[in-house]
Amino acid sequence: MTSAADPPPAGVRSAAAARLAGLATPPGALGRLGELAVWVAATQGQCPPVPVDRVRAVIFAGDHGVADHGVSAFPKAITPAMVRTFLAGRAGVSVLAAQHGVTVRVLDLGVDDDLAGVPPEVMAHKIRRGSGAIHLEDALTADETRQAIAVGEAVAAEEIAAGAQLLICGDMGIGNTTPASALIAASLGLAVADVVGRGTGVDEAGLARKTAIVQQAVDRAADRVTDPVETLAALGSADLAASAGFMAAAARAGVPVLLDGVVSVAAAVLADRFAPGAAAWFAAGHRSTEPAQSLTLDKLGLEPVLDLGMRLGEGSGAVAAVPLVRSAALLLAEVALFADLAP
Amino acid sequence: MTSAADPPPAGVRSAAAARLAGLATPPGALGRLGELAVWVAATQGQCPPVPVDRVRAVIFAGDHGVADHGVSAFPKAITPAMVRTFLAGRAGVSVLAAQHGVTVRVLDLGVDDDLAGVPPEVMAHKIRRGSGAIHLEDALTADETRQAIAVGEAVAAEEIAAGAQLLICGDMGIGNTTPASALIAASLGLAVADVVGRGTGVDEAGLARKTAIVQQAVDRAADRVTDPVETLAALGSADLAASAGFMAAAARAGVPVLLDGVVSVAAAVLADRFAPGAAAWFAAGHRSTEPAQSLTLDKLGLEPVLDLGMRLGEGSGAVAAVPLVRSAALLLAEVALFADLAP
Repeated sequence: MTSAADPPPAGVRSAAAARLAGLATPPGALGRLGELAVWVAATQGQCPPVPVDRVRAVIFAGDHGVADHGVSAFPKAITPAMVRTFLAGRAGVSVLAAQHGVTVRVLDLGVDDDLAGVPPEVMAHKIRRGSGAIHLEDALTADETRQAIAVGEAVAAEEIAAGAQLLICGDMGIGNTTPASALIAASLGLAVADVVGRGTGVDEAGLARKTAIVQQAVDRAADRVTDPVETLAALGSADLAASAGFMAAAARAGVPVLLDGVVSVAAAVLADRFAPGAAAWFAAGHRSTEPAQSLTLDKLGLEPVLDLGMRLGEGSGAVAAVPLVRSAALLLAEVALFADLAP
Repeated sequence: MTSAADPPPAGVRSAAAARLAGLATPPGALGRLGELAVWVAATQGQCPPVPVDRVRAVIFAGDHGVADHGVSAFPKAITPAMVRTFLAGRAGVSVLAAQHGVTVRVLDLGVDDDLAGVPPEVMAHKIRRGSGAIHLEDALTADETRQAIAVGEAVAAEEIAAGAQLLICGDMGIGNTTPASALIAASLGLAVADVVGRGTGVDEAGLARKTAIVQQAVDRAADRVTDPVETLAALGSADLAASAGFMAAAARAGVPVLLDGVVSVAAAVLADRFAPGAAAWFAAGHRSTEPAQSLTLDKLGLEPVLDLGMRLGEGSGAVAAVPLVRSAALLLAEVALFADLAP
């Protein structure tokens, strides 16, 4: 399932950097927006870049066996309730997406519920109900993992066919920061104590339980960190595997992805294994309060656009950053050049 | 010219904080957006808040005598050229404002140019051509200062009458970070070496010259820092005095202001003197690279929304942050309450 992502064209990147330097602003005055503009132009393969109008988000939902082991401040029943809230347009990400004209698609990859009455297309790609508790057993079989990755790849292709210029991958699933932290620690060789955070807000005892569970999971899977399918089968979930496949396929197709929080960046690490070079197609929407997220962004060489102390998941931090990505492209395309200024 | 700004209603602030706590999100998961939402609701005097649709920016332009003394990387001729660029809609702030539906009005308070051919309403409030070089002489007379403050107050009233729900005050003027730094150092009692930055990008020698000039100016005005009119006359400029009047009038009228960079926050410090309590009506759009700006935000108790390394001025950092302020209000108004979640 591994095939490389070609890098964005270096010539366009150079042309964009040159245009940025010629804008009627002091050198570097646009700060991160200038760097982001160069990235957008490079991923579009054209300078000046065109407006980033069509942004599409897909939320991969799933439950996690570890949620029954005291790693979250919330019960698993919240996952299906939030799927219904997305469909009603009343979740955080729904409100932000409506504000910014971002389409949101919700897919149940592994919710531990029948979701009775929910439109059948939401469940069309369901792999299983819940994943295994990763400190005790594998999250998925190898077949389920490959199937979930293929779902993510196919969904990315559909979103790209629908015209996406920028993709966002959101998450929903009580307990999901636990497998995300385990994937990050295992894949990047980071100490478990350094990566585990409070997720939706566990107390001290919960944090200690969560840390022990992630350590146990990482130890259990210690010999399976070189093959990303094996890593996802051992420590991931159907929604995380689909997210990784989605991001890898986007990068291979040359469509940029705006990353969200810790679940999103865990998938990005795996995507960069499935599609070596994929990270060049990724930008970071926001800095989460989860330590694993910042550590991973450092490893991927990404600096987030927003740093607002958000920790909502759902893709919300990425969607909140969309207007800044759009600003970057517009500034590079539309601000006068020094050469144009009236004498 | 001093009269207090009443604080935003505490009851609405409490109601907004209670609503935030009841949203179907983990506690605190919206981070700064949650705090910003509470502030927006309080300044509107209603919870849930209504959408922040009508945002209006006014750019006060002016030249500064110190610009002839090597404090800037750019020549003074850039000021009128940029006024024309604003009017052509091709400056950084113009592009961002068009993106976000923010109106932009440009007013020449003290540009050292005739601005031939520019619409007369732009010059209708002109106080003088350029300000005095503040290390050698006063920037303005006391009369000019009061006149400029009154312009700012009147313009704020006009913008509020036009329906503004949120105001932004932008700046344009080569050399303007020098008087802004002097005003901040003098008003807040900060060491000159701690506040002076590179502005549009002066080199080491320029930074040393700028620091010496600010020190000389602050020393020259040492006995005039208790009366804000005197401080502005000694160390400010017509555009800075108008900006301070604009912000003070907005706060007195109960209309919130989104601050921009170092010039904007220097005016905010003076506005809070003219209208004690005004700072409660201010939020910070972005963190500038100018050290004086961060130091002032700390003193005002404000945490910026964006931290993108921008240093363009023009109100651009505030306008770039507008979608986040809007997001905050929308999230508090539209996200489902936990009480609404399907069981």
